Amino acid sequence: METYISLAHGDGGELSHRLIRDIFVSAFGDKNAVMFDAAAITMATHKIAVTTDSFVIKPIFFPGGSIGKLAVAGTVNDLAVSGAKPAYLTCGFVIEEGFPISNLKKIVTDMANEAKKSGVTIVAGDTKVVERGSADGVYINTTGIGVYQPEIGCSLEFAEGDAVIVSGTIGDHGIAVLTARGELGITAPVNSDCASLNNMLEAILKDTSGIKIMRDPTRGGLATTLVEIAEDFQLTINIQETAIPVKAEVHGVCDLLGYDPLYLANEGKAIIIVSAKEKDKVVEILRKFPEGKDAAIIGSISSKEKGRLLLETPLGAKRLLTRLSGTMFPRIC
Amino acid sequence: METYISLAHGDGGELSHRLIRDIFVSAFGDKNAVMFDAAAITMATHKIAVTTDSFVIKPIFFPGGSIGKLAVAGTVNDLAVSGAKPAYLTCGFVIEEGFPISNLKKIVTDMANEAKKSGVTIVAGDTKVVERGSADGVYINTTGIGVYQPEIGCSLEFAEGDAVIVSGTIGDHGIAVLTARGELGITAPVNSDCASLNNMLEAILKDTSGIKIMRDPTRGGLATTLVEIAEDFQLTINIQETAIPVKAEVHGVCDLLGYDPLYLANEGKAIIIVSAKEKDKVVEILRKFPEGKDAAIIGSISSKEKGRLLLETPLGAKRLLTRLSGTMFPRIC
Repeated sequence: METYISLAHGDGGELSHRLIRDIFVSAFGDKNAVMFDAAAITMATHKIAVTTDSFVIKPIFFPGGSIGKLAVAGTVNDLAVSGAKPAYLTCGFVIEEGFPISNLKKIVTDMANEAKKSGVTIVAGDTKVVERGSADGVYINTTGIGVYQPEIGCSLEFAEGDAVIVSGTIGDHGIAVLTARGELGITAPVNSDCASLNNMLEAILKDTSGIKIMRDPTRGGLATTLVEIAEDFQLTINIQETAIPVKAEVHGVCDLLGYDPLYLANEGKAIIIVSAKEKDKVVEILRKFPEGKDAAIIGSISSKEKGRLLLETPLGAKRLLTRLSGTMFPRIC
Repeated sequence: METYISLAHGDGGELSHRLIRDIFVSAFGDKNAVMFDAAAITMATHKIAVTTDSFVIKPIFFPGGSIGKLAVAGTVNDLAVSGAKPAYLTCGFVIEEGFPISNLKKIVTDMANEAKKSGVTIVAGDTKVVERGSADGVYINTTGIGVYQPEIGCSLEFAEGDAVIVSGTIGDHGIAVLTARGELGITAPVNSDCASLNNMLEAILKDTSGIKIMRDPTRGGLATTLVEIAEDFQLTINIQETAIPVKAEVHGVCDLLGYDPLYLANEGKAIIIVSAKEKDKVVEILRKFPEGKDAAIIGSISSKEKGRLLLETPLGAKRLLTRLSGTMFPRIC
């Protein structure tokens, strides 16, 4: 096999055929004896969830993950937080001419492993090659299809006193990726939290009642995602700064460089809003999973003022938080 | 609104929010009051078709279409040739910093128009922004979900004498795009055939029986797609050069530059293999549609030799055709 991707790998001819056969089919398996334009799948229900995400992360390999692992976990998580059980993924690659095929193999292996772990099947793919300088290595789109399960789901009916839970430490992904770029001039022993959360989130949906909403705080971080929930449902959300789990190393880098962990990207965390009655049970279940071991209740819902996110500082002051504004970091996912 | 895309349009914060609201939601409509991580859709059946495609075409606007029109029609066609009725699309954008927002609006409008024409709904989207020089304008992934209809479909059961039909002139897209780049040093009055074929293909599936397979000859052209069918199903396919519809202008450019129209990309053509008995009826129906007005029977299936595509030349010689090998043209779709 060739060592580098050439434009001919994207022309739909002989080399494209071999690339698909030797790299993709061998990693993802070939459900049909023949590869058609569209994959036929049978769903367990008529009500399904669909999501799409493109991944342009730089660097493509980083502590705790790769663009391949992220492309699967990220889309799996978008389905899982919507309350659906992830079932199928498609993947579309845009590859720069000259990209090492050994790296492509690593990425595809990471995708296959993460798909296996989260129980999803990759059913369709596409590869395009662009000239040197027209992309930066590889970009991957994954689109996910999930199944809504009867009797399980998020109610979207909020009440005063509902608890806001985060499933673990925030900002790990942001700091891991930024330090991996080598542009900050510092190193930090922080791994990305990149992980599929579907099994953990299915457990809390199955074993508790009273889940109001789940979201994954990726780009824009915890604060931006909570602002979106507050605005979309006209809620006032109060969070306590001291209750938010942040790794010491992440705090350290943030202090040094003036970043706010509340706005750093996460790729293996969920925000869960649940009735006050069930909050402890949810935390207890989350902590049984390695991805949820640092889960914590960080705040609650009040309806005093509409559509606002308020942060209570250690000194008791309340600060109004807004969406991330102005780029902190491009290509974080 | 801003004039150019900046990195902040991709950071998941305030500018991303406004871009989605002002460009995408306003064009595609917002099915849910709130934009979630995943769109909930209800399918008419449990058996669905899924396909994905990334579009990196250069230039993004060309005679007869744009990357937006193509991104919808291309994926609609992949579903339609599989025998499914296209229902939902997702779209993922990778945009280069500095890209004019006016162009993005044009692209999104083209997508909305083509979606309306083909009867599909765009249900989920994603936007990533990469630094100047890390992409060439804009790349779009679309993933399509279609519904298999009971009693309608392709049998995949081939017999000697089955007819090979092409729904119109070949090579139009390839020549339109290549001349639009201005690199050939010539101009040609050829429009891309870029179009959604689902309504036309549904008509032949509904009104005839005996359709064996349908495929769209995009990258790699008519010859590559027929070689794939021949190999996948171990058929010998015979086609007659004089029967293949090619526009005079396309012939002209090919003769001048040494291209073979059999290997040029098409974006609004289908290959249909049908029983000998039904072939005339299929052509008759195809010709009722503007996209099918030049439909023609170009060959037939024999089982004398397995897995081969043979071209009968005007002088009666038979030439063995293989897949496209070596890049003719990158970024044709």
